[in-house]
Amino acid sequence: MGGDFGPRTTVPASIESLKQDDNLKIVLFGDQAQISPYLASIPPVIKKRLSIVHCEQVVAMSDKPSFALRHKKSSSMRQAIEYLHQGKADGCVSAGNTGALMGIGCYVLKTYPGIDRPAICTAIPTLGGHSYLLDLGANVDTNSDNLYQFALMGSVLASAVDGLHKPRVALLNIGEEEVKGNGQVKHASALLSAQGEINYTGYVEGDHLFSGVADVIVCDGFVGNIALKTSEGVVKFIASLSEQMFGGGAVSKLLMAAVKPLFDRLQARIDPQQYNGAYFLGLQGLVVKSHGNANVEGFVQAISSAGHCIKKDMVVLMEERLDELLP
Amino acid sequence: MGGDFGPRTTVPASIESLKQDDNLKIVLFGDQAQISPYLASIPPVIKKRLSIVHCEQVVAMSDKPSFALRHKKSSSMRQAIEYLHQGKADGCVSAGNTGALMGIGCYVLKTYPGIDRPAICTAIPTLGGHSYLLDLGANVDTNSDNLYQFALMGSVLASAVDGLHKPRVALLNIGEEEVKGNGQVKHASALLSAQGEINYTGYVEGDHLFSGVADVIVCDGFVGNIALKTSEGVVKFIASLSEQMFGGGAVSKLLMAAVKPLFDRLQARIDPQQYNGAYFLGLQGLVVKSHGNANVEGFVQAISSAGHCIKKDMVVLMEERLDELLP
Repeated sequence: MGGDFGPRTTVPASIESLKQDDNLKIVLFGDQAQISPYLASIPPVIKKRLSIVHCEQVVAMSDKPSFALRHKKSSSMRQAIEYLHQGKADGCVSAGNTGALMGIGCYVLKTYPGIDRPAICTAIPTLGGHSYLLDLGANVDTNSDNLYQFALMGSVLASAVDGLHKPRVALLNIGEEEVKGNGQVKHASALLSAQGEINYTGYVEGDHLFSGVADVIVCDGFVGNIALKTSEGVVKFIASLSEQMFGGGAVSKLLMAAVKPLFDRLQARIDPQQYNGAYFLGLQGLVVKSHGNANVEGFVQAISSAGHCIKKDMVVLMEERLDELLP
Repeated sequence: MGGDFGPRTTVPASIESLKQDDNLKIVLFGDQAQISPYLASIPPVIKKRLSIVHCEQVVAMSDKPSFALRHKKSSSMRQAIEYLHQGKADGCVSAGNTGALMGIGCYVLKTYPGIDRPAICTAIPTLGGHSYLLDLGANVDTNSDNLYQFALMGSVLASAVDGLHKPRVALLNIGEEEVKGNGQVKHASALLSAQGEINYTGYVEGDHLFSGVADVIVCDGFVGNIALKTSEGVVKFIASLSEQMFGGGAVSKLLMAAVKPLFDRLQARIDPQQYNGAYFLGLQGLVVKSHGNANVEGFVQAISSAGHCIKKDMVVLMEERLDELLP
């Protein structure tokens, strides 16, 4: 029910995902009356892997997490998380209210022992593939222990999902020298340097976020959110500027039309929709958050991210590895 | 002497600036032997507006600010700042060690009464022109009073330099709603809402940094540094990706050659060199910091920024307005 478009996006994306993956089953949580119209003409072979759990309530995008927790117990979001918690599903995907999803996720699923706070983690594009960036806004007042835990979780994620042997883990900072940064980052760096389990490679600066120098990049949620949204803003700015500058003359237009297929390919590589689906790392259950403004293609990508994690048994591997890594 | 290239960049840029602006005079501080070779063939009409103060020492890029302050009293950086302090110059431009420049600037020039810490501020491109972003890394552990003071200084800068009547001042945050953000940002927002002097417009998110929704965008130095460098990283990433994706086939190459002039124009609009020259706001004197990796064109831009501020009498206007605005 969540996101800017609700069932109009999430249901067609679910159907498309079922078409793409024969092993997938999807349970839709929400208002049956709103969902049903989108299910009219799907083939029976797809329909048998799709079911609906009707829910009376919806968490609004404007609901505070505490309000959603107390007063939205019959909501699609809460019911879906409960269903996951009862072991009836292997993962939960939502485009809804991020704070409420995190609040309900923490309350129902709990964090792993030794993890104080979950982190929101997404893949970001690099020339060679992708890196993981976390936290993206689950936590705005973070201490160095939190950053340390985020680093461990990011490392386990990259190992589990991408099969990397020793993922390179870095801290996002305002310089590469040991003296740079605030107290929180410096102390987290000391903690990570002192442990011998994961492959900590030191600091990276913002201009290397997309360079592929690290597989996992760790920061507090305020900084991660600003960094990710700023990069989206730059992409939008360049697109608008191109339009403004090249939209004018007939020759420009002709040339631009000729190179458009190339630019569509470029656009596809940097389109946030392609990287849609952020993990709520640290919860005892797989919760994937889609951008609220994701289109059908974007929501398919979020479902696909969840499916990939399930196939790799990420939640179980995370629990086992954290048991070894944390005191 | 500073930056990645030293006199090789700063001296030719100084000569170029003198050619562009008949009212400009430049005093070069540094090692006469290294500077002189670049002055061989300049016309007398330029040469008479250029002088050299020979300095025995140089602040290294790796020097800690405290070390530079104590042990580099004969350095080009220290001597230039002293010269400015003595009223012999109207502004100082350096491509050197940022921390040392800030440390020496604070020690010699002092901050304005009521300003606890200076901020580093730069212009960033928008579709319609530019906005100012501060702080960019002068302060990594900032409180809400600092952010409040940065907002006042940014507003005065935009008024003085761009002639804006009531510059729109915003705080960079991870959401636009009043409940979003960390304690520091929320408290700064309350302080700015309570005052009636400057035009505070609320929060902006990272994806609106380049949209022109505000004339001045305020954040702590850690966040500002990450945001600015991330945006540089995105531009670099897109450039590399374009090269990787379009470098292949003959047809692609031909098409790309045809649109290259258009892209050179686009590149020029987003090139950080075009926006080179960050102000050290809050010091009782005009100090402009060039990127260490600036080329001649970039350093000319930094000198031009300083010249523009001098013509607008920014330092005096800042003092007068802060006297009115601060308790």
